[in-house]
Amino acid sequence: MDSIDTKILQMLRRNSRESFATIGKKVELSAPAVGKRVKQLEEKGIILGYSLKLNHEKLGVATKAYINLRIHQSSTLRTAYNQVIHQEEVQRCDRITGQDSLCILGYFKNNQDLITFIERISQYGVPTTSIILEG
Amino acid sequence: MDSIDTKILQMLRRNSRESFATIGKKVELSAPAVGKRVKQLEEKGIILGYSLKLNHEKLGVATKAYINLRIHQSSTLRTAYNQVIHQEEVQRCDRITGQDSLCILGYFKNNQDLITFIERISQYGVPTTSIILEG
Amino acid sequence: MDSIDTKILQMLRRNSRESFATIGKKVELSAPAVGKRVKQLEEKGIILGYSLKLNHEKLGVATKAYINLRIHQSSTLRTAYNQVIHQEEVQRCDRITGQDSLCILGYFKNNQDLITFIERISQYGVPTTSIILEG
Amino acid sequence: MDSIDTKILQMLRRNSRESFATIGKKVELSAPAVGKRVKQLEEKGIILGYSLKLNHEKLGVATKAYINLRIHQSSTLRTAYNQVIHQEEVQRCDRITGQDSLCILGYFKNNQDLITFIERISQYGVPTTSIILEG
Amino acid sequence: MDSIDTKILQMLRRNSRESFATIGKKVELSAPAVGKRVKQLEEKGIILGYSLKLNHEKLGVATKAYINLRIHQSSTLRTAYNQVIHQEEVQRCDRITGQDSLCILGYFKNNQDLITFIERISQYGVPTTSIILEG
Amino acid sequence: MDSIDTKILQMLRRNSRESFATIGKKVELSAPAVGKRVKQLEEKGIILGYSLKLNHEKLGVATKAYINLRIHQSSTLRTAYNQVIHQEEVQRCDRITGQDSLCILGYFKNNQDLITFIERISQYGVPTTSIILEG
Amino acid sequence: MDSIDTKILQMLRRNSRESFATIGKKVELSAPAVGKRVKQLEEKGIILGYSLKLNHEKLGVATKAYINLRIHQSSTLRTAYNQVIHQEEVQRCDRITGQDSLCILGYFKNNQDLITFIERISQYGVPTTSIILEG
Amino acid sequence: MDSIDTKILQMLRRNSRESFATIGKKVELSAPAVGKRVKQLEEKGIILGYSLKLNHEKLGVATKAYINLRIHQSSTLRTAYNQVIHQEEVQRCDRITGQDSLCILGYFKNNQDLITFIERISQYGVPTTSIILEG
Repeated sequence: MDSIDTKILQMLRRNSRESFATIGKKVELSAPAVGKRVKQLEEKGIILGYSLKLNHEKLGVATKAYINLRIHQSSTLRTAYNQVIHQEEVQRCDRITGQDSLCILGYFKNNQDLITFIERISQYGVPTTSIILEG
Repeated sequence: MDSIDTKILQMLRRNSRESFATIGKKVELSAPAVGKRVKQLEEKGIILGYSLKLNHEKLGVATKAYINLRIHQSSTLRTAYNQVIHQEEVQRCDRITGQDSLCILGYFKNNQDLITFIERISQYGVPTTSIILEG
Repeated sequence: MDSIDTKILQMLRRNSRESFATIGKKVELSAPAVGKRVKQLEEKGIILGYSLKLNHEKLGVATKAYINLRIHQSSTLRTAYNQVIHQEEVQRCDRITGQDSLCILGYFKNNQDLITFIERISQYGVPTTSIILEG
Repeated sequence: MDSIDTKILQMLRRNSRESFATIGKKVELSAPAVGKRVKQLEEKGIILGYSLKLNHEKLGVATKAYINLRIHQSSTLRTAYNQVIHQEEVQRCDRITGQDSLCILGYFKNNQDLITFIERISQYGVPTTSIILEG
Repeated sequence: MDSIDTKILQMLRRNSRESFATIGKKVELSAPAVGKRVKQLEEKGIILGYSLKLNHEKLGVATKAYINLRIHQSSTLRTAYNQVIHQEEVQRCDRITGQDSLCILGYFKNNQDLITFIERISQYGVPTTSIILEG
Repeated sequence: MDSIDTKILQMLRRNSRESFATIGKKVELSAPAVGKRVKQLEEKGIILGYSLKLNHEKLGVATKAYINLRIHQSSTLRTAYNQVIHQEEVQRCDRITGQDSLCILGYFKNNQDLITFIERISQYGVPTTSIILEG
Repeated sequence: MDSIDTKILQMLRRNSRESFATIGKKVELSAPAVGKRVKQLEEKGIILGYSLKLNHEKLGVATKAYINLRIHQSSTLRTAYNQVIHQEEVQRCDRITGQDSLCILGYFKNNQDLITFIERISQYGVPTTSIILEG
Repeated sequence: MDSIDTKILQMLRRNSRESFATIGKKVELSAPAVGKRVKQLEEKGIILGYSLKLNHEKLGVATKAYINLRIHQSSTLRTAYNQVIHQEEVQRCDRITGQDSLCILGYFKNNQDLITFIERISQYGVPTTSIILEG
């Protein structure tokens, strides 16, 4: 990775739909040359994908919450992780230090959906919920 | 938002660089018709932007951490928020319930950079750090 | 709901036995007209009922307490809720965020009755008790 | 207080607008005799008032929360209590055992109003918030 | 209980072996009159007994500790209480508010005896130990 | 201390007003010989005094509580200790491990007196109160 | 132990490979006389052994952590202790006051090895992990 | 570092006073060849020094404790660290995750020395002490 790759990544972070031509003007390369570098960044596994920033509120999300799930026994944490990560409300799921647990970020239509989610995952551990007030 | 918009969003979530032509084939619309709908989703503020999924480890990140910052006095939380959100290590920053605090997700080159970050934000509150072991 | 309804509600909140005639004088309506509006507020489900403010100490209550009941497993919380809410000592019972639990407000004749209550509900979860010193 | 007073209180607890005539039929007394007993219950300070049970959601309440306010110094707790109790969002405010604090029940239009409330009271102590998910 | 009884109690609290004659001089009563009053204080259950203040260190106590025993299930707390109270190391045992538990004050010959005690009572609940550094 | 001293101490622990004659019969010594041994136990500082076991409830105590006082700064703990130990409600006061604090056992006429006590000592640290429900 | 023994210990603490001749010069004794004293310190059990100070990072350690293991039941703590102490990552293992637990200091090749360790010991209790950021 | 270096380190870890001749026999090298390798391990900074394992109890240590020092403000943690690390009772001092703090392992003559130590370091933060019961 050289300084041109770094610049390309910066531009794509701001707008991942940016055309290679526009990027090329900034880094003084042709569009195909930019495309080749982007392809290499994908092949090296540096770029993992291209995603959207959505206004979840406008899509019906009224309750965002961090749920800390303290696993009943650490040896079952991986099972819990694999179940949790695939649920559609889950934005992130990380195993963290402190009391051995998963830190889950979830977006929910309403409090009732949050409750349903908590009850579903409570078979794996003790959930502690913090509502996001603003963020 | 109708069911076609929903499908378009789904496809863009998986790959935000997907061409309107490819999306069009799936939803049985022309590329310009897809482009027009995407433009409307942007104008309605549903799509906020297009971002990258990066392999941060390959970019030099060795320490990922959640830092909970309990603010010394709630009235200064907004000031803290505005300072924290613009620091480059910060991936997310949310005000959460429980003891009034910011939940900060940060990516750091190493433990030393994490310490520097903690010391910098400690003027606003009491930081509690959980390292992400895997996620 | 217009501003007259709001005024009627305000007067009834202060004294729910207030006559419609007295209310009518304040809002410049006849007693039957007030009665009709109150009936509508009941039918819309805005007014749920008319209750008493009692001096519980004079009725023999010596110990008021908040009991936080951390449920053994979230999936049994609804069962616990349904049992707890119908016990006569219980003034309020709310499911709250944080560690998944019920927050129960109870009025008791004495500490011994509080202990009996705690032991009864401890089959559902771990009770943590805070005595109300004044309120 | 005899068993007839107890029955009268029970009926008024269920519906504080109940007419003395209806109550009288149940306790086999004339309406004026019931009225006289109710008056005495008021004069003895057993009945403190007549209140409404409202559907707060229909009146615009979207966020109900318990806020525990740990006072910076116990000696200022009374000042804090007197400020908090008169704010319109506050339904209950009790001084409780455990770490010396006020347990405040508040009803808010939305999360933003809750934040404003927290910031206002944070001059007196450290607020810890639990959202009521259902109750 | 009149003011003379109060004075008698005060003198006995300071020295429970004080002779009735000496007490009598202070309260201007004869020794038999004092004896009669003390007998009545015993019969009324105000005086429960006469005990010693010992220097436990000189009797071989090297470790004093408060042990908080959080009971596994509140319904078994009474069983635990009855077991704990009769163990010779136990000076006090009280059921307290907060997380439902026994607060046990124990005097031990050494840390090893404290460990043995903790292991013995751990069948009833989760022990948390605080060593008395000075008191 | 030999086995006779141990027996004498045991008898005095049960009843510190026991006559030396009665004790002498049990340990097969004359009353003066017992008296001489007791005097020696006092002089060695093993017996510190003779106290009463009182029924505090019958003397007007309605609220017994443990108050944990976390000192603002450890260096002022001795000052706090010296103030607290001489207050008449205080039965015990011990400096304990864990978060540096005093563990205070207090007997109070009512909750109001407990509150007054808490407010008085709060200049030294943060009080956390547990009511004794039975003990 | 006299002052010469103390000096010998001080020198060996700084460098346990120091020759007896060098030590002898400092304490004005012959090398064999020093050797005799060291032998006695070993025989009295004061010197337990001679160890190395290593740079663990250079030997591949990337993650150092304190793991607090709260034992499920105190009676099994000794079993847990005996298992834990013999694992090669474990530098120290101490039974501590507070909530009955083992405080384990472990050095790990990476976070993944730490996770494996946590999962292995979680059969004995609930692990809480603190990463050493610097030390 | 090859497998011979590893074996040399293992032997020195067990007994750092082991002669190079004895080590040489195990690894099939001459004493000077072992000495040369040890010198290189020192020069590479892998071996930092040679230390003693002492029986601290026999040297007068009666109280071993972990003291967690939560720093008042993270920015002063380095100052605290530098003060604490040089005090003779301190065996280890590590900055750890969780609430930003130093984890200090100290060996003390008695509880009084521990108290003195706590009071001395309390100018930097809030100390929480756990006594080592066995380890």
